[in-house]
Amino acid sequence: MNTIKLEKEFLTYVNKMQAYDEALGLIFWDLRTGAPKKAVDQRSQVIGTLSSELFDLSTSDEMASFIAGLSSHKEELSEITVKTLEECQQEYERNKKIPAEEFREYVILQSKAESVWEEAREKSDFSLFQPYLEKLVESNRRFVQYWGSEGNPYNTLLDRFEPGVTVEILDRVFAQVREAVVPLVKEIGESPNKPDTSFIFTHFPKQAQKKFSLKMLEEIGYDFEAGRLDEAVHPFATGLNPGDVRVTTRYDENDFRSAIFGTIHECGHALYEQNISEDLIGTPLCSGTSMGIHESQSLFFENFVGRQPAFWSRYYDTLKEHADGQFDHIPLNEFVRSINESKPSLIRVDADELTYTLHIMIRYEIEKGLINGEMKVENLPEIWRSKYQEYLGVTPENDAEGVLQDVHWSGGAFGYFPSYALGYMYAAQFKHAMDKDLPNFDELLSQGNIAPIKDWMITHVHQYGKMKKPLEIIKETTGEGLNAQYLIDYLTEKYTKIYSL
Amino acid sequence: MNTIKLEKEFLTYVNKMQAYDEALGLIFWDLRTGAPKKAVDQRSQVIGTLSSELFDLSTSDEMASFIAGLSSHKEELSEITVKTLEECQQEYERNKKIPAEEFREYVILQSKAESVWEEAREKSDFSLFQPYLEKLVESNRRFVQYWGSEGNPYNTLLDRFEPGVTVEILDRVFAQVREAVVPLVKEIGESPNKPDTSFIFTHFPKQAQKKFSLKMLEEIGYDFEAGRLDEAVHPFATGLNPGDVRVTTRYDENDFRSAIFGTIHECGHALYEQNISEDLIGTPLCSGTSMGIHESQSLFFENFVGRQPAFWSRYYDTLKEHADGQFDHIPLNEFVRSINESKPSLIRVDADELTYTLHIMIRYEIEKGLINGEMKVENLPEIWRSKYQEYLGVTPENDAEGVLQDVHWSGGAFGYFPSYALGYMYAAQFKHAMDKDLPNFDELLSQGNIAPIKDWMITHVHQYGKMKKPLEIIKETTGEGLNAQYLIDYLTEKYTKIYSL
Repeated sequence: MNTIKLEKEFLTYVNKMQAYDEALGLIFWDLRTGAPKKAVDQRSQVIGTLSSELFDLSTSDEMASFIAGLSSHKEELSEITVKTLEECQQEYERNKKIPAEEFREYVILQSKAESVWEEAREKSDFSLFQPYLEKLVESNRRFVQYWGSEGNPYNTLLDRFEPGVTVEILDRVFAQVREAVVPLVKEIGESPNKPDTSFIFTHFPKQAQKKFSLKMLEEIGYDFEAGRLDEAVHPFATGLNPGDVRVTTRYDENDFRSAIFGTIHECGHALYEQNISEDLIGTPLCSGTSMGIHESQSLFFENFVGRQPAFWSRYYDTLKEHADGQFDHIPLNEFVRSINESKPSLIRVDADELTYTLHIMIRYEIEKGLINGEMKVENLPEIWRSKYQEYLGVTPENDAEGVLQDVHWSGGAFGYFPSYALGYMYAAQFKHAMDKDLPNFDELLSQGNIAPIKDWMITHVHQYGKMKKPLEIIKETTGEGLNAQYLIDYLTEKYTKIYSL
Repeated sequence: MNTIKLEKEFLTYVNKMQAYDEALGLIFWDLRTGAPKKAVDQRSQVIGTLSSELFDLSTSDEMASFIAGLSSHKEELSEITVKTLEECQQEYERNKKIPAEEFREYVILQSKAESVWEEAREKSDFSLFQPYLEKLVESNRRFVQYWGSEGNPYNTLLDRFEPGVTVEILDRVFAQVREAVVPLVKEIGESPNKPDTSFIFTHFPKQAQKKFSLKMLEEIGYDFEAGRLDEAVHPFATGLNPGDVRVTTRYDENDFRSAIFGTIHECGHALYEQNISEDLIGTPLCSGTSMGIHESQSLFFENFVGRQPAFWSRYYDTLKEHADGQFDHIPLNEFVRSINESKPSLIRVDADELTYTLHIMIRYEIEKGLINGEMKVENLPEIWRSKYQEYLGVTPENDAEGVLQDVHWSGGAFGYFPSYALGYMYAAQFKHAMDKDLPNFDELLSQGNIAPIKDWMITHVHQYGKMKKPLEIIKETTGEGLNAQYLIDYLTEKYTKIYSL
């Protein structure tokens, strides 16, 4: 068959796969926002059917012959087809290299492990989860062998979430960040100039929080004709296609930060997905390029926009108008200090901007140790406690607030955690580059003119989807490789000021 | 292959088809309740992909061999498998008998015709729509030839929506109803005892209507763990599976009837789908058995429950509590008279209980005439006007409020309209049978004890899904075939009283 015809057939085939993916995306959104309780059993069957169809399409003989037929004619293909082909080939090989029987067993193990983890966390009893985690680690170590690895075996797992990022890179940047952040955290703990946060925990009616959240989305540039805001227990954003990118948030009437900063965070994810080039629709490239770059967008808007004094100089009055008198006696500068409070804590998802990366490093070191066979699962509770003491100066009283707190490992997602910390570093590095193009950044915030900031991100990041790898975007946009110094500088300057260090 | 093994494979195959169907159901629900505007283009692709997969599954060689392999061993199969097989076979034959190329052209015609109809209705210009309607009629006449027919050719189309119901039956019952209703409508028009309806059109805040709608759903026995209430421009109920049956309504702040009676109507549909036997989940039997029986449930709850004096003797005070003083000076009996007002009108969807069947008869006569070649599309505006004058004593001023008002024909849905009228007759016939088992029906309503009424419907109708054909249910439940006299008696008694005839 000639290449042009084969290319067309391949794109049609890929388009069909994307249709399954979008249907699944909608089903998951629905389950997490408002599907009735009794829907779940049968809906799981539907998910099972569509997922396994999608898996079959990705590993079919037809896919194999597309890969074989097109790979040797890349010079005749469009750039989009070439990248699409590469994505499909990678997926094909990943899925095919694991023996079918072993993969089936692994899927069952994942699903069991997740429910056992839930129970173990509830009972705060690691020993329940331990045998499952051991099997999950063993499976992933075998998968690494099947898939092959360059350098450290853990690199293979990292590559799934953050293509191009390796243990060598992470060891370097994490050491650098740790060296700067650990003493900073200690200094803050000893500072006598702590913000008063008591007003945060007073009543802010849900409907008013919702109204303000919608206002924030609008101001930041979220396109409501291509999305909607709903509630979810664990907030998320989901891009079904660039014309349908939905955000969710959670309202806590006794802590407004959850909804407000949660919404801005998810808005960052959503702007990324809403602004991917239309040319990529219907291909696997129509999605954020990596977990880390995705997180850089949510964190950029949450922290470098949403927690800035200039931003609140514009919107604090609006916030006051929505609230029930909660902020009336709090001056702007006190408000801004309070929403930027930093304090060592036990739970990752509640951690502040400064201490968050330390939570990630602990998980990174443990994952690396497990995959390389240098740590044993049975020792994790003890390792966890000692690392938290060392990095954060706090020790969990039980496994529920310790090693059992995160869902990730129960699903076998090793290699995912570092993306969260990379997101911070990328965000700070983008901010540094953006300052050259938009030296009036703070002025824009104080005018509520966020469009140029959003447009900068569209130009440099969003539009490309998966057409560029994460480190390619970093290099082209900032002129250098990953550099943790920008995050360190940002945190040091910011917290020195807030705590008058 | 042995029959037991083949039966198992067949049920797995059918289960997969149901998964596609459920995913499509969720996508349609989402599009009609809150999907963002820009989602639509790409979502249509997804619908296209999943629908054509489903179509392929229903007409595959695999399906053909299931039918061939199992049909000759029905005595070894479970009853559910037998009925499932029959459904699949019917679908297979319907789809296979139309030449593939012709079917493809028809799908394109449908989609074009629908958008042309929209434009024609907007411009109130039938001539725009006429050539498309002509082609649709021609196609359906050819389809009838492909499918074959017994007796009147139109029977074949009727059978798609109301299996077992024929022109012979409809001619008889419609004549009977017309003979009773037309003079009744005339008498009402001349009656000096008309209810005052002015209070209906005063302001009832949307949020309060929503609260009362939710209350009604709860009182009637809708299971909120297996459903939810949303807004839609054209309200509907959709059963994704018995654990997920969603209802929608529309709030008009200047006419509360739209939301309240709309909600109760959709609740009737939903009760049906929520209470289908769990044994049928994952088969095509897990759905209402026909359009007419479905409509009997919505109309039963809307009219025989929701418009009854006894019902409002229980809930009128609650309604008053939710409203903004709108009903304070209206006595209960005046309220009940007003919500049962009857008046000849031009638009079917706004028609009242008494005149509704006349709107349906007009459409039935036209469809029958077109399919049998006794009427021409070009004459429809004129035929429409004269029939409306004859049956209802009103004449549309233009095509938009005449022949162009309904969407059905633009989608090629000939044979669907009679189901609406059958729904009324079934409902009245069920009510007559129910009165024997529940002679205290009105007392139950006035106590707000609707459970026994719902349970009666579950026992006789809901649980069976498609395990029984509509006329089988009617026969077994009421001891006789379709009998229009019950509807006539009900309407005559009710309206004689309301208008003091």
